[in-house]
Amino acid sequence: MRPLTMENVVLTEGFFGDVQRKNAEVSLMNIYRRFASTRFATLDCVKRDPPSHIFYDSDVAKWLESAAYFSVRYPSEEVARIVHETTEKIISHQLPCGYFNSYYQTYKPDKIFCERTEHELYCAGHLIEAAVALDETGLDHTLLPAMKKYADYIYKRFYVARDTAFTTCGHPEIELALVRLYSHTRQKKYLTLAKFFLDERGKRAEEIYPGRDRQYDQSHLPVREQTEAVGHAVRALYLYIAMADVGRLTKEKALSAAAERLFENVVTQKMYITGGTGSNYAGEWFTEPYDLPNEYAYAETCSAIALALLSGRLAQIKNRAEYHEVMERVLCNNLLAAQSKDGKAFFYTNPLETNAAHLKFAREHAFPYQPIAERVELFDCSCCPPNLTRFIGSLEERIYGVERGVLYVNQYISSEASGAGISLSLRAAYPFGGSVRIRAEGKGTLKLRIPAWSGKVSCTVNGAFYPVRPRGKYFAVRIDGETEIGLDLDMRLRFTYASAQVAENCGRHAVEYGPLVLCAEGVDNGGGLRGLAIRSLKGEIEAENGMLEVTLPAHRLCSARELYSHRKPSLETCTVKLIPYFAWANRGETEMQIWFL
Amino acid sequence: MRPLTMENVVLTEGFFGDVQRKNAEVSLMNIYRRFASTRFATLDCVKRDPPSHIFYDSDVAKWLESAAYFSVRYPSEEVARIVHETTEKIISHQLPCGYFNSYYQTYKPDKIFCERTEHELYCAGHLIEAAVALDETGLDHTLLPAMKKYADYIYKRFYVARDTAFTTCGHPEIELALVRLYSHTRQKKYLTLAKFFLDERGKRAEEIYPGRDRQYDQSHLPVREQTEAVGHAVRALYLYIAMADVGRLTKEKALSAAAERLFENVVTQKMYITGGTGSNYAGEWFTEPYDLPNEYAYAETCSAIALALLSGRLAQIKNRAEYHEVMERVLCNNLLAAQSKDGKAFFYTNPLETNAAHLKFAREHAFPYQPIAERVELFDCSCCPPNLTRFIGSLEERIYGVERGVLYVNQYISSEASGAGISLSLRAAYPFGGSVRIRAEGKGTLKLRIPAWSGKVSCTVNGAFYPVRPRGKYFAVRIDGETEIGLDLDMRLRFTYASAQVAENCGRHAVEYGPLVLCAEGVDNGGGLRGLAIRSLKGEIEAENGMLEVTLPAHRLCSARELYSHRKPSLETCTVKLIPYFAWANRGETEMQIWFL
Repeated sequence: MRPLTMENVVLTEGFFGDVQRKNAEVSLMNIYRRFASTRFATLDCVKRDPPSHIFYDSDVAKWLESAAYFSVRYPSEEVARIVHETTEKIISHQLPCGYFNSYYQTYKPDKIFCERTEHELYCAGHLIEAAVALDETGLDHTLLPAMKKYADYIYKRFYVARDTAFTTCGHPEIELALVRLYSHTRQKKYLTLAKFFLDERGKRAEEIYPGRDRQYDQSHLPVREQTEAVGHAVRALYLYIAMADVGRLTKEKALSAAAERLFENVVTQKMYITGGTGSNYAGEWFTEPYDLPNEYAYAETCSAIALALLSGRLAQIKNRAEYHEVMERVLCNNLLAAQSKDGKAFFYTNPLETNAAHLKFAREHAFPYQPIAERVELFDCSCCPPNLTRFIGSLEERIYGVERGVLYVNQYISSEASGAGISLSLRAAYPFGGSVRIRAEGKGTLKLRIPAWSGKVSCTVNGAFYPVRPRGKYFAVRIDGETEIGLDLDMRLRFTYASAQVAENCGRHAVEYGPLVLCAEGVDNGGGLRGLAIRSLKGEIEAENGMLEVTLPAHRLCSARELYSHRKPSLETCTVKLIPYFAWANRGETEMQIWFL
Repeated sequence: MRPLTMENVVLTEGFFGDVQRKNAEVSLMNIYRRFASTRFATLDCVKRDPPSHIFYDSDVAKWLESAAYFSVRYPSEEVARIVHETTEKIISHQLPCGYFNSYYQTYKPDKIFCERTEHELYCAGHLIEAAVALDETGLDHTLLPAMKKYADYIYKRFYVARDTAFTTCGHPEIELALVRLYSHTRQKKYLTLAKFFLDERGKRAEEIYPGRDRQYDQSHLPVREQTEAVGHAVRALYLYIAMADVGRLTKEKALSAAAERLFENVVTQKMYITGGTGSNYAGEWFTEPYDLPNEYAYAETCSAIALALLSGRLAQIKNRAEYHEVMERVLCNNLLAAQSKDGKAFFYTNPLETNAAHLKFAREHAFPYQPIAERVELFDCSCCPPNLTRFIGSLEERIYGVERGVLYVNQYISSEASGAGISLSLRAAYPFGGSVRIRAEGKGTLKLRIPAWSGKVSCTVNGAFYPVRPRGKYFAVRIDGETEIGLDLDMRLRFTYASAQVAENCGRHAVEYGPLVLCAEGVDNGGGLRGLAIRSLKGEIEAENGMLEVTLPAHRLCSARELYSHRKPSLETCTVKLIPYFAWANRGETEMQIWFL
């Protein structure tokens, strides 16, 4: 499948269009202001005390990439000026050989390509991605040749001369960036180099992170032999993306199959209901199968982005509805939750539960780790905010695809698009309602995904009843001239149960609505959320102003005064108000709960 | 109430007699062998690299105290020889002024009484307790005068000259040791000094532990104003013991009342069902009310001992059955669990749940903290083993008490005793059976505690039916000449529910039998213990060879293969085998669970 790109897709009015606009109009410049004196300033390669962070360049690069995407629909002179100043700065400090890394050039010029664990090629990768995006969108054409020169230098040193102190970077990213550079320039050497990095990974004992082991950066085994998602979750998923890309482009089945296998492992054993991944905050690891603690979830925003990207990349190999289901789960839950309603603040980790006592204790005393329950505008390690903006900025690419002359609708995001001989306009109440209206023109086949979560689906084509295939698959509509398609997905509230192997959720269930995981917040429901029992889904649903509120009858455990008692707690009748998980933590610090009795 | 001491109580054959024998015959010398080259060796005050630990002296002291108790019923020439060598060593290195601390004398002679946080007076306190115990039991009479001299020196420096760099020790212990020294010697100055330390605590900003705050060592408020148990759990409970002691001896109600209030706070909001206390492993803290995580429980063995001691001390002020209930809960669950079946190995923390995935991950990778699931013979911080032996060695003192001429039976531990004009022999199947047979002689009043957990209680006196008062209280039997009392407590299996405010246990219940909390282990029940639902208590109970096994009908959550599914997990019929919590982890590393669906 070839996804339709921004050239052929425009988001129109609606929930996701608003999200993208907010990111373009608020988030982008707000992140810049937070980054200006640190990430952007240090591009001048002047020593500072304390020194700058090893991966500041990548933060800048992701911001540039975001700016590129937003420039297509939301051009801004201010942003364009910053982009040009920034690319100029990078190019002016690029070494004659092509190398650029503000950290190494400033602090460790004698250690270039010597330290595997310091994100050197990771930064290079993000700069390359930014250069391609800037070139593609036309916002800047100067960075691409500069970064090609850098890529050529990397090729020369790592692949031709092989005189570097390490072979693979401790944080995958260069691999998928090189694939992108190859796709944009069609210069084979970049694909060769990407494949080389994949081929070499896990083949020898290279430098590892202090206190970590070789699983941490997925160098424990040659990549084709890896079957279980292990180690740092973002690193793992970036690696799998590169494996999928190189496998697809070189038509190497073993590599694609390995990526597919690792994806399957994640989504069947190691993914939160929100699409979050990585469950151990210490080391930000994938842990054992089914180990998915709610309160102490790591579920980094970047890791959610990576899983969404991986889903999209695997769909390019073979367009299975399952990939888009995962994309949808990640997008509508973990990813949307990662940003505050006003677009300014972000979560790094995305817990699935918060506990007032733990938050209080953590605030007042020394505590080893407590996930935050309010988003902030800047982290020391602030990789997530510009990663999210670049994802939202290129949301157009997640919606449609063309495979064997058929146009696929993968996500019901209001938009206009054209491909495979069809042009269409799609209006959807999604994610708050199930109504989808498509007005298509042209001649060809359109395939529409029926989400597995949908209840009864009804469809009309030009006003006539149209039978649809089972949930979790696509159904086809032949377009010949102007065609009106009315699709009604059934968003109905439903209980979702985790595998009994997920120890934390045994005896509990979540409530979902359409693609949305719902949650209860203390601010609406008072304390004691762990004692809320929801047994009926017959309640009220209100969806307006980009928000959903569900009110359900519920019960609350009401126990004896004693700490331990032989009397069974009674169940007190109450109502519970649920909102989408993505909307939590927008009204001050409060408790939150997804899994109910 | 004045507890009967070892002079008037002998444990006889039975479960607790066996536990005491095991501790005397196995544990004591096994701990010594583990300590000899470290704790005992460093008493010579010779520098080592790496340096010895700041509180090695206290480990030795608790071992000496244990040896003193065991010497009464289990005299051993080997132990006596070690005791004499050790006291000689201590005395020979004691400074002329009376000071003794092997760490400070060896490594920081210029820092004596300068560093509040380094357990200096804590070590002194344990040495004083050891000296009193050795003198009382007659095993050694040399250490007492030496430690009196040390106490005099502390009095002179801290109370008279007030020329030390700190006023109160960062780890309470000296206070209660001084009370004990006062009770043994009747020298008022020691009580004065104990009260002085209590009076001064929390009155000014003294040195605190790096990364901690003033709650950590309970110096956040004057002790009489403290209402919530906070900070390091062992420190807190030791302090409350001293408050109870000084309050009782000086008849200061404000102090006793504060100790009582803090005890109430612990047992109504901050105590595990096992009697464990302290729920945050980082800092070993009391945390917020009702924050009682099972897997990551701290519940240090020393903290359980301290709560048991506090219960006993408060009972000395006013003998309420409630104190002995808590003592019983701690003793029969957390304390017995702290030691392996063979008496050689110990737990430092006592988790209420273990998870195989977490244990595997912790073993294979870097992990911030994971409670161990198998006891070990020695810890770096090995305060618990000799603390447990000294508690078990003086178990006699926890059983009976005399108040206003009445002899109270507080615990049903097989023993012989005499007090308040009565001598008696008590045989009980406890903790595995409810049958208690008492043969009493003499003239007086005997009061027997009816545990709150007991179902129907039946009693006969000299073969005739005897009505008993409600559970959770005492009932009286007039003894006049030879009297046979038959008491049948009803141990019946029962479900116990935690307050709904205990987030971790919402929707779950424990199974108790008599005073015992039961648990399921993976070795008996396979994996997935979190998915075990116990809804019936009609099963089989087998009690033999000092062990209890309960087999109950149960169900196990059996879910769809998918990680997330809309199908409700089914309940598969199975049986569950439960054993006492204290017996867990004696058959290799395995999962364990107390709270069931």
